[in-house]
Amino acid sequence: MENLGYYNGAFGPLEEMTVPMNDRVHFFGDGVYDATCCTNHVIYLVDEHIDRFYHSSSLIKIDLPFTKEELKSILQDMVNKVDGENLFVYWQVTRGTATRNHAFPKVNPNLWIMIMPLKFNDLKERIKLTSMEDTRFLHCNIKTLNLLPAVMAAQKASEEGCFETVFHRDTIVTECAHSNVSIIKDGVLKSHPNDCYILDGIAKRHLFKACKELHIPVEETTYTLDELLEADEVIVTSSSNFCLVADAFEGKPVGGKAPELINALQDNLMTEFRSYCGLIERQL
Amino acid sequence: MENLGYYNGAFGPLEEMTVPMNDRVHFFGDGVYDATCCTNHVIYLVDEHIDRFYHSSSLIKIDLPFTKEELKSILQDMVNKVDGENLFVYWQVTRGTATRNHAFPKVNPNLWIMIMPLKFNDLKERIKLTSMEDTRFLHCNIKTLNLLPAVMAAQKASEEGCFETVFHRDTIVTECAHSNVSIIKDGVLKSHPNDCYILDGIAKRHLFKACKELHIPVEETTYTLDELLEADEVIVTSSSNFCLVADAFEGKPVGGKAPELINALQDNLMTEFRSYCGLIERQL
Repeated sequence: MENLGYYNGAFGPLEEMTVPMNDRVHFFGDGVYDATCCTNHVIYLVDEHIDRFYHSSSLIKIDLPFTKEELKSILQDMVNKVDGENLFVYWQVTRGTATRNHAFPKVNPNLWIMIMPLKFNDLKERIKLTSMEDTRFLHCNIKTLNLLPAVMAAQKASEEGCFETVFHRDTIVTECAHSNVSIIKDGVLKSHPNDCYILDGIAKRHLFKACKELHIPVEETTYTLDELLEADEVIVTSSSNFCLVADAFEGKPVGGKAPELINALQDNLMTEFRSYCGLIERQL
Repeated sequence: MENLGYYNGAFGPLEEMTVPMNDRVHFFGDGVYDATCCTNHVIYLVDEHIDRFYHSSSLIKIDLPFTKEELKSILQDMVNKVDGENLFVYWQVTRGTATRNHAFPKVNPNLWIMIMPLKFNDLKERIKLTSMEDTRFLHCNIKTLNLLPAVMAAQKASEEGCFETVFHRDTIVTECAHSNVSIIKDGVLKSHPNDCYILDGIAKRHLFKACKELHIPVEETTYTLDELLEADEVIVTSSSNFCLVADAFEGKPVGGKAPELINALQDNLMTEFRSYCGLIERQL
């Protein structure tokens, strides 16, 4: 099977799956999600992603009616059914199925899963970035299904032949449409602190871990668009893109001044990924 | 039939309707909606609501593949099929059905409609309000399906036995979870100007029209929480609640000092509604 959808225990090819019209996601985007990549039928960093999913759910007061172990087991069963070396593993919970009414209904949440083929981007290929004023809500720390501003930003990137759109609040860089963004300047990695303006990215956490192992100091502090333009390197991370690096921002050249640090970070992150997924011997 | 759902031409009882899992609303809330009430099988102010729906669609770059007249005709066909004196008429468009990817796919939008029973609130019964910091995105002028903050606010109201939650940005009152809010002070009606912080409410427009007819000056200007607390009256409007009036805010008494203006406004609005819907002779 090439892909697989799941909704409250029912599963089948994604294109054939349907859901009730009264699922609250339809009217309010009332749910949260998480997602990661999977290689060799190993779901990468699955526990961290499930922990974050539970955290997101709790922040919008959805009480998940299954344990973390049960969810993990369902996800693993699902990826086991799907062919393909590399998969995108996506799951979400919605508050339930009920006649449209803003306040919470007394119903059980709905669990959704999608397993799809994934093509990794080549980390050695530098990416182009554009930018957009960050007009999103002040809950960007929660991985909600209210993603219309991210959609508009991703579309802008697509129309301009860019990989991502960098959001900024006035001059402060926050994150991208579906990635975190960090810079390296004078050997130090800078990234927006975790607060209501950005997602606590799991790939970003692992980038920080790689920095620590490579003795690259990390500063979780805000930085400006000008600092990004003058950075030695600009790094974009997401759960399937462990360390993409930019060479253009708004059509102007950017980064490219610390390639040896980039190589070391990418090697570290790819080694971690390959050992986790059993593609190489786990490093001790 | 008690209610009716519609999705791209298919229709049936809401509880039985299903939609494809790959509808983009599921992942991004990628769509806009509008809604109004219907009495006597007349859809109240249908043209204004359809105009606003087209405007919302254009702001998120969804190109509707049907004319306003076609949409109006489908809505009328739908309400004609449903029993009940008073109906809630809701419709939305989502960007289309495609494998999850942020940027726009090249597919047709999906049209959704729901017709449901409606019980009007008694305008003579005063309502209670609570409040919440307005942490929403800066696109509240668009009637999008990204409504999670409105859900959380409505839930707060529900838990506190209130009808609505008043959003405020710092001390400035914007609107409510699913209503506009205006105040009367010294015979003048004040309401937040139409900008990115609030929806251009159609019930609000008609409240302004009633004010004009009754020679009540209208000021579209921001006002503070303190001004709301000290107002002569606090008015909450939405498309099924033409002029609700508060008597409590955060547990403290509010308004009640200009009941004659309220009565005149409510009479004006109810007369407009009843004549539009053919319940009384249209006033000339």
